[in-house]
Amino acid sequence: MQIGMIGLGRMGGNIVRRLMRDGHTAAVWDRDERAVSALVTDGAVGATDIEDLLRKLEAPRVVWVMLPAGAITESTIETLSGLLSAGDIVIDGGNSFWKDDVRRARWLKQRGLHYVDVGTSGGVWGLERGYCMMIGGEKDVVKRLDPIFATLAPGDADVPATPGRGTRDTRPERGYLHAGPSGAGHFVKMIHNGIEYGLMQAYAEGFDILKNANSEALPKEERFNFDLTDIAETWRRGSVITSWLLDLTASALTRDAELGDYTGYVEDSGEGRWTIMAAVDEAVPADVLSAALYARFRSRRDHTFGEKILSAMRAGFGGHIEPKASGSKVEA
Amino acid sequence: MQIGMIGLGRMGGNIVRRLMRDGHTAAVWDRDERAVSALVTDGAVGATDIEDLLRKLEAPRVVWVMLPAGAITESTIETLSGLLSAGDIVIDGGNSFWKDDVRRARWLKQRGLHYVDVGTSGGVWGLERGYCMMIGGEKDVVKRLDPIFATLAPGDADVPATPGRGTRDTRPERGYLHAGPSGAGHFVKMIHNGIEYGLMQAYAEGFDILKNANSEALPKEERFNFDLTDIAETWRRGSVITSWLLDLTASALTRDAELGDYTGYVEDSGEGRWTIMAAVDEAVPADVLSAALYARFRSRRDHTFGEKILSAMRAGFGGHIEPKASGSKVEA
Amino acid sequence: MQIGMIGLGRMGGNIVRRLMRDGHTAAVWDRDERAVSALVTDGAVGATDIEDLLRKLEAPRVVWVMLPAGAITESTIETLSGLLSAGDIVIDGGNSFWKDDVRRARWLKQRGLHYVDVGTSGGVWGLERGYCMMIGGEKDVVKRLDPIFATLAPGDADVPATPGRGTRDTRPERGYLHAGPSGAGHFVKMIHNGIEYGLMQAYAEGFDILKNANSEALPKEERFNFDLTDIAETWRRGSVITSWLLDLTASALTRDAELGDYTGYVEDSGEGRWTIMAAVDEAVPADVLSAALYARFRSRRDHTFGEKILSAMRAGFGGHIEPKASGSKVEA
Amino acid sequence: MQIGMIGLGRMGGNIVRRLMRDGHTAAVWDRDERAVSALVTDGAVGATDIEDLLRKLEAPRVVWVMLPAGAITESTIETLSGLLSAGDIVIDGGNSFWKDDVRRARWLKQRGLHYVDVGTSGGVWGLERGYCMMIGGEKDVVKRLDPIFATLAPGDADVPATPGRGTRDTRPERGYLHAGPSGAGHFVKMIHNGIEYGLMQAYAEGFDILKNANSEALPKEERFNFDLTDIAETWRRGSVITSWLLDLTASALTRDAELGDYTGYVEDSGEGRWTIMAAVDEAVPADVLSAALYARFRSRRDHTFGEKILSAMRAGFGGHIEPKASGSKVEA
Repeated sequence: MQIGMIGLGRMGGNIVRRLMRDGHTAAVWDRDERAVSALVTDGAVGATDIEDLLRKLEAPRVVWVMLPAGAITESTIETLSGLLSAGDIVIDGGNSFWKDDVRRARWLKQRGLHYVDVGTSGGVWGLERGYCMMIGGEKDVVKRLDPIFATLAPGDADVPATPGRGTRDTRPERGYLHAGPSGAGHFVKMIHNGIEYGLMQAYAEGFDILKNANSEALPKEERFNFDLTDIAETWRRGSVITSWLLDLTASALTRDAELGDYTGYVEDSGEGRWTIMAAVDEAVPADVLSAALYARFRSRRDHTFGEKILSAMRAGFGGHIEPKASGSKVEA
Repeated sequence: MQIGMIGLGRMGGNIVRRLMRDGHTAAVWDRDERAVSALVTDGAVGATDIEDLLRKLEAPRVVWVMLPAGAITESTIETLSGLLSAGDIVIDGGNSFWKDDVRRARWLKQRGLHYVDVGTSGGVWGLERGYCMMIGGEKDVVKRLDPIFATLAPGDADVPATPGRGTRDTRPERGYLHAGPSGAGHFVKMIHNGIEYGLMQAYAEGFDILKNANSEALPKEERFNFDLTDIAETWRRGSVITSWLLDLTASALTRDAELGDYTGYVEDSGEGRWTIMAAVDEAVPADVLSAALYARFRSRRDHTFGEKILSAMRAGFGGHIEPKASGSKVEA
Repeated sequence: MQIGMIGLGRMGGNIVRRLMRDGHTAAVWDRDERAVSALVTDGAVGATDIEDLLRKLEAPRVVWVMLPAGAITESTIETLSGLLSAGDIVIDGGNSFWKDDVRRARWLKQRGLHYVDVGTSGGVWGLERGYCMMIGGEKDVVKRLDPIFATLAPGDADVPATPGRGTRDTRPERGYLHAGPSGAGHFVKMIHNGIEYGLMQAYAEGFDILKNANSEALPKEERFNFDLTDIAETWRRGSVITSWLLDLTASALTRDAELGDYTGYVEDSGEGRWTIMAAVDEAVPADVLSAALYARFRSRRDHTFGEKILSAMRAGFGGHIEPKASGSKVEA
Repeated sequence: MQIGMIGLGRMGGNIVRRLMRDGHTAAVWDRDERAVSALVTDGAVGATDIEDLLRKLEAPRVVWVMLPAGAITESTIETLSGLLSAGDIVIDGGNSFWKDDVRRARWLKQRGLHYVDVGTSGGVWGLERGYCMMIGGEKDVVKRLDPIFATLAPGDADVPATPGRGTRDTRPERGYLHAGPSGAGHFVKMIHNGIEYGLMQAYAEGFDILKNANSEALPKEERFNFDLTDIAETWRRGSVITSWLLDLTASALTRDAELGDYTGYVEDSGEGRWTIMAAVDEAVPADVLSAALYARFRSRRDHTFGEKILSAMRAGFGGHIEPKASGSKVEA
């Protein structure tokens, strides 16, 4: 198939490359001309702007937008809606909020256009490993795009299918899913990322406790000298907690067991936040996913104002301001 | 009554003063001679060491130990056990772990001595406001000490008794409680402090959200300009969340709404920790009390090793190390 | 002043009564005629519908809407907007979402109408104790309504003003606050309720640990026989954790220490949820406030689907399905 | 090598089988004679009691104890200590508390005996998949036992070694680890299980939110019809959250997407609890691991007493008892 790609960052560029390697063709555009040139070198048709891109696509056109979620994606889709023709398809492969998908799909439908939301996992490894995709949109439109999804997906990835799937849809066994109508793709991707935060935090806390078990702050007879690198490597085989995230952790610890390159300042994207909002909307307790998000919030502050409130109360009943490094214990 | 006090810090000194104001007498000792002198000026009999203190007490002696929980309290009680006579009473008014009380009471009993554990709340306000006390020990021994507890307690404190108490024990209406056998006093005090942490953290988070609602990081139309000082003052009357901790918060915010004197570095004492251990032993979910404790742990670290683990994983799937101040969003 | 009240439930009816007791006059309407009659008996002017209510008010009219947040409040304000005249004032005293206030205020302003959002705390105690109010809206409009707020507020409530307030606004010392422009009142009330959830959960967990310390599941030597009623009463005086919520807890425990009338099924209103959303929007860690909300969500389910997922995984690696009441320990 | 095995439950029996398949020999004993017979059928030498078992082992003897942690393990090791001879080795392969290991090792050392603690992961899959082992004890003793560990371990398990390990110990690459002195093995296993709880809860919450997104309680336009079985299957390939636990979840959902066989009543073993205690001892924030444990505690109660406290407070300020199934919203 032929695809138009808008946005040639780390994800968009490699998606095009993976498609072309499998015989698909692509016209591409990005604000950064060098990104366009790089893809042209790899075999894509370059465009000078969105209008030019659309001219280079055969009808019905398929345009994949791979831009940061939010204002840029929104305005790009608005621009496309004015330029595309009935029957054309817009794919949003970024990390959009699923309620935005629902809204956009309705609005594009009024113009005779189709909208497909694709939650795309895999990061920088996707080019080789394939992209796990969670797709929302009209059934026949998603089916029409299947050649693209089949190429981008990981395939079986040497993972045996779960026994008993019988005559079920085989796409999940190849790493992609038509999750439901518009918004369903990004909803499932949102939960994927929410879970991801929780998993990461579980490992983080576990390794933190191991690390601090080596601390000189502990009494000598309760102190160990754990080799975190070897522990991570050991758990990769036969343990209950084997995972890809553990593999990545083992790699990082093998390079430097102190993780000295990292400040510990941890970003979050919208999806972890929206997961909490979905839980609250549904009245589902989500203690772990919330705590994982808050640990990231906290990592980005020297101190919270809340902590100063605590210190102020303690001074209020304990009678003195606690010094930065004291061991003062003024609980009353 | 006559009491011997060992440990004349902020709590011990004022306990003696409150007792003497009500006609009790005291012999006192502290490693710091100036602390002894100060109390002598206020009317106490000073001692030069523990043996001297014991000589200055009439049998059966009552010795109140008011020292930091842990090794110092333990060794002091050991020393006392070798010097006291059958029928004497040791009171531990510090923040000891309740299992230590159980052990010590058994051990002193073998020597014919009585042990009373008193959880004492009130902080620097206790001299004027009285001390809320939670007491563990033998029934008749606790009764024998009642003149002391009645003096130290807040009394009715202008708080009307709860209707319907009928013929119940009136001590709780005067702010002290015989909670049960040895350990019971410190157990109840432990829970008091566990709750205290939770309450404090609830206010802290609420004020933090209010504070950040003023932040320039928010879109202008979603930003406020809240006056936290006035908010705290308003809530002190007629709201559901009136409390003494809120009073203290209002005071601190009135002095400086930025709480500039406080670093946000927050200590914890053992009691918040033991509360969690008790919850775990009993299989009681204690999410809020745990989170409150962990917020204090976190406040004392620049970054946790766990946060570096998170960053390392993110670099693993996102392909780059996140900079300290970036807005990079590499969720995959 | 004269006020029109729409909604004569527990809150609306008593607000009118407290106003009339202080010399204000009121016209009132409710879908329930008996509620109207009851207020008429107490001195209010009854109305047969909203139009009738408005006819009974002098210009510029002040209409207080005291209805459940959401659709009913929204449609009532829409109706009012078509019937009121320039200069009239609409007060929303319910628990609306603050972003709805911002939107409504803009929209009413276009019609020459004023909008004031009032977060009202105090519950069924407000009639006697007064209502703590957090107010959002235009400065001069809020000032014009001051006689009403001054009457409804608790006044000093025997709570001494915090020292050092100097020439500050005295309204907070009487229990009401002009928090800022539209939405500010309900934002502050939202945080009030968020904190309320956290405080309640802190007490709940603490008493739960005390209760379970009496459990026969514990080894006999680690078991107590705590009297929760007396503990709550004791803490009401001189402890660090005195509060109105503790007073209410002591009352409930005095009536029945087993709390047998309560199922443990706990509702939540929107404000606890919106508090979490505000925290997430501001990237403020709110572990305690979230955990308190989730405990309520959980209280309303027999089991979560998440728990079945846990059991299913455990069966997956442990080899058998765990029975309901077993003590099986299949951790692998 | 030759090994004596005490305890032929699910784990102990299969450990013996895996050893014998690789040419080791074993004498075995269990209180349940049928368990002994089953192993004898598979090639082991059966014993009638512990003394008989010891007679059937060549010096220096290696006795592996595979019993439930706690009293049974403790008393068995006590018994062994009186029967073994200098140079013999006791292995505790159960889930003992690491501080018990430290104590036992010291005590056995005084009798000239060696103690090795082995945290064993793998569950019912271990026979085929191998056991991931975390080992504590004296260096040369652990080395002496290497033939046993090498057989039991998963080997490379088709998992490529992490690049850059260079000349590091190769045992972790084969799924076993000498973690340090006595207690180190069970400490690392404890953390493994703590992480396990956190990972499981992260998936549980994510699937719970997906499940409830299908709920008729939601407005129709915000409702989906997600197929959780296909979602789990899809995530197994190319996503960031691939793991063995996800594989098990996909299997369970494939068998029955409603998980109707499971009550949602979830046990916990000591290791999740001790992980929290270790975190508290080290002052490491462990929000996620704690929340995961508490979710299990909560799953085993109809209602907590804490929830009744909440309801009682709500009745206190809201004026009525909330019914079981009401939508009453009495936030004040």
